[in-house]
Amino acid sequence: MNGRYVAFEGIEGAGKSTIARCIVSALQEADYPVVFVREPGGTSTGERIREILLDGDAFVTPWAEVLLFAAARAQLVREEVRPALEAGSWVVSDRSVYSSLAYQGIGRELGIDLVRRINDVAIGGLWPHEVVLLRVDVDVGLQRQRVADRIGAEGIEFQQRVSRAFDTLAVSEPARFIVTDAASPVDALIEEIWEQLHRPARPLRM
Amino acid sequence: MNGRYVAFEGIEGAGKSTIARCIVSALQEADYPVVFVREPGGTSTGERIREILLDGDAFVTPWAEVLLFAAARAQLVREEVRPALEAGSWVVSDRSVYSSLAYQGIGRELGIDLVRRINDVAIGGLWPHEVVLLRVDVDVGLQRQRVADRIGAEGIEFQQRVSRAFDTLAVSEPARFIVTDAASPVDALIEEIWEQLHRPARPLRM
Repeated sequence: MNGRYVAFEGIEGAGKSTIARCIVSALQEADYPVVFVREPGGTSTGERIREILLDGDAFVTPWAEVLLFAAARAQLVREEVRPALEAGSWVVSDRSVYSSLAYQGIGRELGIDLVRRINDVAIGGLWPHEVVLLRVDVDVGLQRQRVADRIGAEGIEFQQRVSRAFDTLAVSEPARFIVTDAASPVDALIEEIWEQLHRPARPLRM
Repeated sequence: MNGRYVAFEGIEGAGKSTIARCIVSALQEADYPVVFVREPGGTSTGERIREILLDGDAFVTPWAEVLLFAAARAQLVREEVRPALEAGSWVVSDRSVYSSLAYQGIGRELGIDLVRRINDVAIGGLWPHEVVLLRVDVDVGLQRQRVADRIGAEGIEFQQRVSRAFDTLAVSEPARFIVTDAASPVDALIEEIWEQLHRPARPLRM
């Protein structure tokens, strides 16, 4: 695989979608082949699973939630991510397996190891090469959030656990995480991420 | 938990639904409290997952299939099976976790151990107390099958692997499996299952 798999992560309202799209545009302008995907969803079956997961009226048990996210992710990696990487493309993903570690493993207090193992099977061992963590205060994130879905509607303590989980993951995998302050001006933020992604010293972990 | 969790298993066309319903009726006539469920489905979220799983037009990867069945099962055990057992009821289930071991673990050749581990998490360790295996020749089963769904439409080699998988599971867990010949006359079959379920010597594994 010659491509590069970059995930954008962070709590609700961190600006992941916006910043990820800007990086996709910058890559396209620089003539890099790039595929943009989002989780959950991004495939026909995955979008059907997404509807269930984000439906505010659905009752979904914590473990069913883990399994549904993992199922949608299995589809996405198989149908989109792996083929794109094999074709030498960049893949920019709005959320990834790390969201499951943070939201279900820590947020739902199910334990990160079991969530990690189930997801490792789902993605066939294909983890993002780089994770851009957009850090933002939970209060600010919740205010910025447009429409709260089933998971976004969880209370502030849940969102704080998730926020701390992302920080802990970043500390435990420093070679993979690019940690940024989402409160920075957008142009500066994009420039910083762009430089980090193109740092010559940064080893490509394929 | 005082209730009893009995699953009916077998390949397509073995007559699981029919025989399971007859046993439910017999239990009701004998004034046992009984809840009848089917897999996948049986809950609001589970039925939405069922639609995806059985849709002949859907592309579902093998591992996504495992995870979707497990997600529907997590909902069913949490919402229906466990509460019913805790209330002292019988639960009769048309298919169960053993179908995933046979269909996905062996039929799809994903390996039974990993499928077992994922499902053990999904059901929170609540395995059926008894499994009634309705054995039928694959040829006969396929003829009897009413409408082939996405999984039922798999070829004969797949169905044969599943059939052998059920036999192997029955041999490896003799205390849990009640193995029957689905070609027997229905009345004799129901009487045999009824007696096996009520055998005084049969230990209740709660």
